[in-house]
Amino acid sequence: MQRVVIVGGGFGGLGVAKALANQPVAVTLLDRSNHHLFQPLLYQVALAGLSPADIAAPIRSVLRKARNLQVLMGEVAAVDRAARQVRLRDGTALDYDYLVLAPGAQSGWFGHPEWAEHAFGLKTLDDALQIRTRILLDFETAEREHDPERRRQLLTFVIIGAGPTGVELAGTLAELSKTLLARDFRRVAPTEPRVLLVEAGERVLAAFDPALSAAALRDLRELGVEVFLGTRVQAIDASSVTMNGRRVPTRTVVWAAGVAASPLLQSLGLPLDPQGRIAVNPDLSLPDAPEVFVVGDAARLEQDGAALPGLGAVALQQGPVVGANILATALGRPRKPFRYKDKGTMATIGRSRAVAQFPRLQLTGLVAWLAWLGVHLLLLVGWGNRVLVLLQWCWQYLAFRSGARLITGYGVVRGSPAALDGRAAGAVEDELAADRR
Amino acid sequence: MQRVVIVGGGFGGLGVAKALANQPVAVTLLDRSNHHLFQPLLYQVALAGLSPADIAAPIRSVLRKARNLQVLMGEVAAVDRAARQVRLRDGTALDYDYLVLAPGAQSGWFGHPEWAEHAFGLKTLDDALQIRTRILLDFETAEREHDPERRRQLLTFVIIGAGPTGVELAGTLAELSKTLLARDFRRVAPTEPRVLLVEAGERVLAAFDPALSAAALRDLRELGVEVFLGTRVQAIDASSVTMNGRRVPTRTVVWAAGVAASPLLQSLGLPLDPQGRIAVNPDLSLPDAPEVFVVGDAARLEQDGAALPGLGAVALQQGPVVGANILATALGRPRKPFRYKDKGTMATIGRSRAVAQFPRLQLTGLVAWLAWLGVHLLLLVGWGNRVLVLLQWCWQYLAFRSGARLITGYGVVRGSPAALDGRAAGAVEDELAADRR
Repeated sequence: MQRVVIVGGGFGGLGVAKALANQPVAVTLLDRSNHHLFQPLLYQVALAGLSPADIAAPIRSVLRKARNLQVLMGEVAAVDRAARQVRLRDGTALDYDYLVLAPGAQSGWFGHPEWAEHAFGLKTLDDALQIRTRILLDFETAEREHDPERRRQLLTFVIIGAGPTGVELAGTLAELSKTLLARDFRRVAPTEPRVLLVEAGERVLAAFDPALSAAALRDLRELGVEVFLGTRVQAIDASSVTMNGRRVPTRTVVWAAGVAASPLLQSLGLPLDPQGRIAVNPDLSLPDAPEVFVVGDAARLEQDGAALPGLGAVALQQGPVVGANILATALGRPRKPFRYKDKGTMATIGRSRAVAQFPRLQLTGLVAWLAWLGVHLLLLVGWGNRVLVLLQWCWQYLAFRSGARLITGYGVVRGSPAALDGRAAGAVEDELAADRR
Repeated sequence: MQRVVIVGGGFGGLGVAKALANQPVAVTLLDRSNHHLFQPLLYQVALAGLSPADIAAPIRSVLRKARNLQVLMGEVAAVDRAARQVRLRDGTALDYDYLVLAPGAQSGWFGHPEWAEHAFGLKTLDDALQIRTRILLDFETAEREHDPERRRQLLTFVIIGAGPTGVELAGTLAELSKTLLARDFRRVAPTEPRVLLVEAGERVLAAFDPALSAAALRDLRELGVEVFLGTRVQAIDASSVTMNGRRVPTRTVVWAAGVAASPLLQSLGLPLDPQGRIAVNPDLSLPDAPEVFVVGDAARLEQDGAALPGLGAVALQQGPVVGANILATALGRPRKPFRYKDKGTMATIGRSRAVAQFPRLQLTGLVAWLAWLGVHLLLLVGWGNRVLVLLQWCWQYLAFRSGARLITGYGVVRGSPAALDGRAAGAVEDELAADRR
């Protein structure tokens, strides 16, 4: 039986695996985490609206019923195309007849890798839990802090990049901090928390129609988000962000500005585009290696004169095509080219506001938000049996509650200031130091 | 207005705060975490059945409506009884007219503090997440491991102490690992995972009637738990446990054997009992300081010739009495003595098996389990608006699913073996090292 190795269990890789379930090939799916993540709702984990388990499921559970599939948790160190082998960091080597690379993307720092030490990316559950813990700790510390400058620094949150993730984070964080959290804290006034959204381009949601960008900008400002357009970040350190020459004191910077494809692709020895992606044929295979496919954020494919965007929807549509092309090749049949069908894109701006762009229709406001809710409910329900989770979530969301405002040890590690007390700065670091011994 | 400081937001401290809500006293509740935890279900977070948010709620949300209460997150360094001051680790000092100490208990290591480096306690959400991550990673590593001895070590789980926590952990872990996990993993046979329950005494659940202990032992053995009675632990290190002279290779040891009251009590300069508790008057105040109360696991109070047990039920009943006694004293009225009313105790042994001991009734098997379920549902519902969470939980529990089998970075830190791959041993440690710079 021919062996297929899939690297990555995101929308793309999981789709390929599902297309190959119970087919006459032996499939191994590798992922460095044990779960598939519904990334479009990751910002809600970061902002304490959802728990990790609400938007993630163990990959091996999802694929349990397909006996020709095995799932291994492990990180790929390199691909040896000559030997047709994938090598893991632990030394294991896996032979393949077909290889699917779906490693996704990570935060791209525009040539400033040192910023990664001070700004949070938002790509994994751990990223989200770190952001959550940091924001909640900032509020807890502010509750005990009397120095006005220090309070201002603690309660200033900077989000860099006004694409869908940045806009959703900023709008939801403004709502959370000015209503829910301000209501729970005695000494934090609703006017104190500041949410800054910084964008180098001239409008938010640049991939959307300008009318929708304008609607989103208006909504963000109504929620109290301070939006800085045409503004470049020059420096990020542990206590501030510098943008357009102005230094803004803050402890909490979230990076939603750029992504770069996985560094794994560099081991292929092929040219990469500026975002680190690799150009593929219309059937999603490599130009010089028909047995290797690339899907999702790692693949660069032009369609109608422009590269396809790095959206979950693209990866979702690519998975079944790659699965079908592998089976077709194994059976000696011709492959199909991939063609992306844009079914629409959306972004929420807090509760009851959104923008949605469909091929023949544009929506804003409450109607767009209801459309967003409906689509995400359908996507999540189709993906797992999570009806009750969703009921809970809708109820919390509509009732303006937030069920997961828990500070756990994890996020504290990162840059705890001396001003935090024992639990935050001392105990947890001691504990981790002990763990590392 | 007189000032009340409450240290600890568990069952005891939260109960005092609720009794003082909207009364003519100014109350500050201190806790080193930001959440109240429903500890009786913590083992279900550790075994991936529930999410942290299902059993925890932000203390400040719970107490939001009482305007005479404030909540501060911080760790108490010492109590200065002469100055009537509580000092936090960050240097803040709080004056009090009445002080309530409800700091709870932590794992007690019977004179072997070094074991804390290699065994997991189960007192906090972070403990539970560490245990969860470790167990899931052990399975993931076993899936890739071919050496039989190494597999045996990875799939041997040792639980020390056969009180209710140890019994619930052992029974549920045996079910989880022999059914759910074995079904998801391709190369782990249902017979491979071993769960050892080690108890120094001669029976499990020593606080229960001997007939119930016998029923629990039978249930545990039917679930495949290997129970070792009359067995003393002599050593715990990173790769094994030694008991009764025999070395058992294992990576994963959970300590449910002993608790010790919070070390904070040592700063009072009063004699403590062997479990670190402090003797209190029948009104729960200190013998030499009527303005200081101690509740919950930190208090030693004899009733009918025996010290009250360290149960959540005791703390739950003490909170309102202390609140009432503070108000009575402030109004010049006499205090009431506390008397614990035993409403029954229970322990589950996996799905659909339990033992329950009520004053006039003993239950085992399915009936006891349904009673356990009903009581915990009532307690949780009364404590928060969590009906939907509970529906979800019942459904998962009954349908033999488990919704939270997620490996997040946190737990990995502790003793990652070199055999784990990049994500586990390399990437996460690198990430944390970067965070600590």
